Amino acid sequence: MLKINLPYIFAICLWISFISCQGNIKKESPSKVKNTAFAIVIHGGAGTIKKENMSDAQETVYRDKLQEALDVGFDILNQGGSAEKAVQKTINILEDSPLFNAGKGAVFNSAGQQEMDASIMDGNTLNAGAVAGVKHIKNPINAAILVKDSTRHVLLSGKGAEDFAKLHGLKMEDTTYFYTEKRFQSLLKAQGKEQALLEKNIKNIELIDNHQYGTVGCVAMDKNGNIVAGTSTGGMTNKKYGRIGDSPIIGAGTYANNQTCGVSATGTGEFFMRTLAAHQVSNLMQFKNLGLKEALAQVIHTDIDTLGGTGGLIALDKYGNVAWDFNTEGMYRGYRNANGKNIIEIYKIKHP
Amino acid sequence: MLKINLPYIFAICLWISFISCQGNIKKESPSKVKNTAFAIVIHGGAGTIKKENMSDAQETVYRDKLQEALDVGFDILNQGGSAEKAVQKTINILEDSPLFNAGKGAVFNSAGQQEMDASIMDGNTLNAGAVAGVKHIKNPINAAILVKDSTRHVLLSGKGAEDFAKLHGLKMEDTTYFYTEKRFQSLLKAQGKEQALLEKNIKNIELIDNHQYGTVGCVAMDKNGNIVAGTSTGGMTNKKYGRIGDSPIIGAGTYANNQTCGVSATGTGEFFMRTLAAHQVSNLMQFKNLGLKEALAQVIHTDIDTLGGTGGLIALDKYGNVAWDFNTEGMYRGYRNANGKNIIEIYKIKHP
Repeated sequence: MLKINLPYIFAICLWISFISCQGNIKKESPSKVKNTAFAIVIHGGAGTIKKENMSDAQETVYRDKLQEALDVGFDILNQGGSAEKAVQKTINILEDSPLFNAGKGAVFNSAGQQEMDASIMDGNTLNAGAVAGVKHIKNPINAAILVKDSTRHVLLSGKGAEDFAKLHGLKMEDTTYFYTEKRFQSLLKAQGKEQALLEKNIKNIELIDNHQYGTVGCVAMDKNGNIVAGTSTGGMTNKKYGRIGDSPIIGAGTYANNQTCGVSATGTGEFFMRTLAAHQVSNLMQFKNLGLKEALAQVIHTDIDTLGGTGGLIALDKYGNVAWDFNTEGMYRGYRNANGKNIIEIYKIKHP
Repeated sequence: MLKINLPYIFAICLWISFISCQGNIKKESPSKVKNTAFAIVIHGGAGTIKKENMSDAQETVYRDKLQEALDVGFDILNQGGSAEKAVQKTINILEDSPLFNAGKGAVFNSAGQQEMDASIMDGNTLNAGAVAGVKHIKNPINAAILVKDSTRHVLLSGKGAEDFAKLHGLKMEDTTYFYTEKRFQSLLKAQGKEQALLEKNIKNIELIDNHQYGTVGCVAMDKNGNIVAGTSTGGMTNKKYGRIGDSPIIGAGTYANNQTCGVSATGTGEFFMRTLAAHQVSNLMQFKNLGLKEALAQVIHTDIDTLGGTGGLIALDKYGNVAWDFNTEGMYRGYRNANGKNIIEIYKIKHP
């Protein structure tokens, strides 16, 4: 038997009660400290990109272009510009380069045409705009921004989207502008493979996928804490039947929400559509309290892996933390932030 | 001072500890008991549907058609058929009826054409298929199923989607088949309003929205517990520029996942696209442990309301519970389940 006073008993009880409840409360990780940092992250597509298949000179060309794009966006943010402007101008550089599958250098569909898609989302207002299947708009990401700002629509497609862009004075180009010999050869190669399969009487020829994804994307957070994500692509080589992939689909290829993060995807678009990859990252953070890296890892290595999909995601959270993940050999990517980080990578994951 | 033994103190402490932790553990509601029940729920669009604007005869016509569609799907499920077959055949009835804005009776775009969209998702495999902007496919939901089953793609659009459907022998119809005088008059009315705005020099004429949504949708769970959701629509009267709404977008207008629920949406599609409404319902259940009704309420009355959107959602969860919610005057809707429930409603919410 012990002599003990009642307040003391209750103090012990309360303490045990407090301790035993801690397991149910997920704590903010130390890296999640809100700051006025700004940051920008980009990708130029994921796929079977291996060091052994790339000369030093080729690698330098890619690195330089990624750096140029990153710097343009970074400078805008550094000077107090908006995340949207940074995303737009950064993606414009990648669209204007024949190195990537967006704008000039877009891949060819089965009819030998270049059909491009793009989307943008503003994490502050949750406004979004996108275009699908456009053939003459020099910078499809600019058309996506126009849809967001000048209509109550989210997604315009085909000739209608082009008419709309023309009406608003967007720069149009002849199909010859978008042509690159490299992409045309890719089409011929894909069609050769297709013919071989046809001759072997293998059906489902629309299943052919050459695992070359050159989609470009950018996510930026400005000094006001606004997050914007954008994606631009030529889709899939030899694509048929007006196929639309994930890039112009809000929540699949692109998503931004100031409460959580911004995300841009690249890969076999259909798997990103079925898993709502970009929206899923945000929801895992918002509703399951996962960190950015954990959320990306779950979407790529669990959700998309399980279905058999391949590709990658870039993202940044509302604290300015940058992350990326992919299950392909490589992904053209880079980021810069207010703390002086400036990283360009192509092959296996090292940062961030 | 009190005399008390030590084991007694610890017993009190443990009890308090247990009680105080209960608040953090969300309990399964009694209704969430897994059973072999099957159920089907449908909608025929949400909007300004008021009792005072509808004659008894008109109401009977709508009720009868909704009941016919519901019964077709219910019978399939009752006989052990698949949720997909139930969703397809139920939607076919609604597509074939001129009462609803899907298939025959689809609304007209600004060019006086009927462009239809549809999508389907299988909650077991997370496979999905969709078509956008098709003009001659008698039953667009059948084309969505074909895309799901016969390609690795999710979304085919425009003429390409039609070519694909034709190649696979889907029933095509001339544009006269889809024509209804009522919808054509709606177009003329919308264009009259547009002209009036133009004459007043009001810009953003693409903002016009006549708040008539006749999209159809169906979600079913079969005796194997598989959930399938589908949606079919003619989109928005007087739509321009190849606008694509939420109905063919997986995660926006349609979503199914056997782990959570199946959902079909109707309303101002753009708000359902920006909020990823159907996917959001599923994630609120999966990651935040909300019940079906609470998840629907949050998406409609918080997420979509906040952005200024209007419309409705129908859904059923993996336990066979059915729910719907909307922030419009009414929504054509109904459900039947294994327990003998058979409800058709049009105006303000009473069930379920």
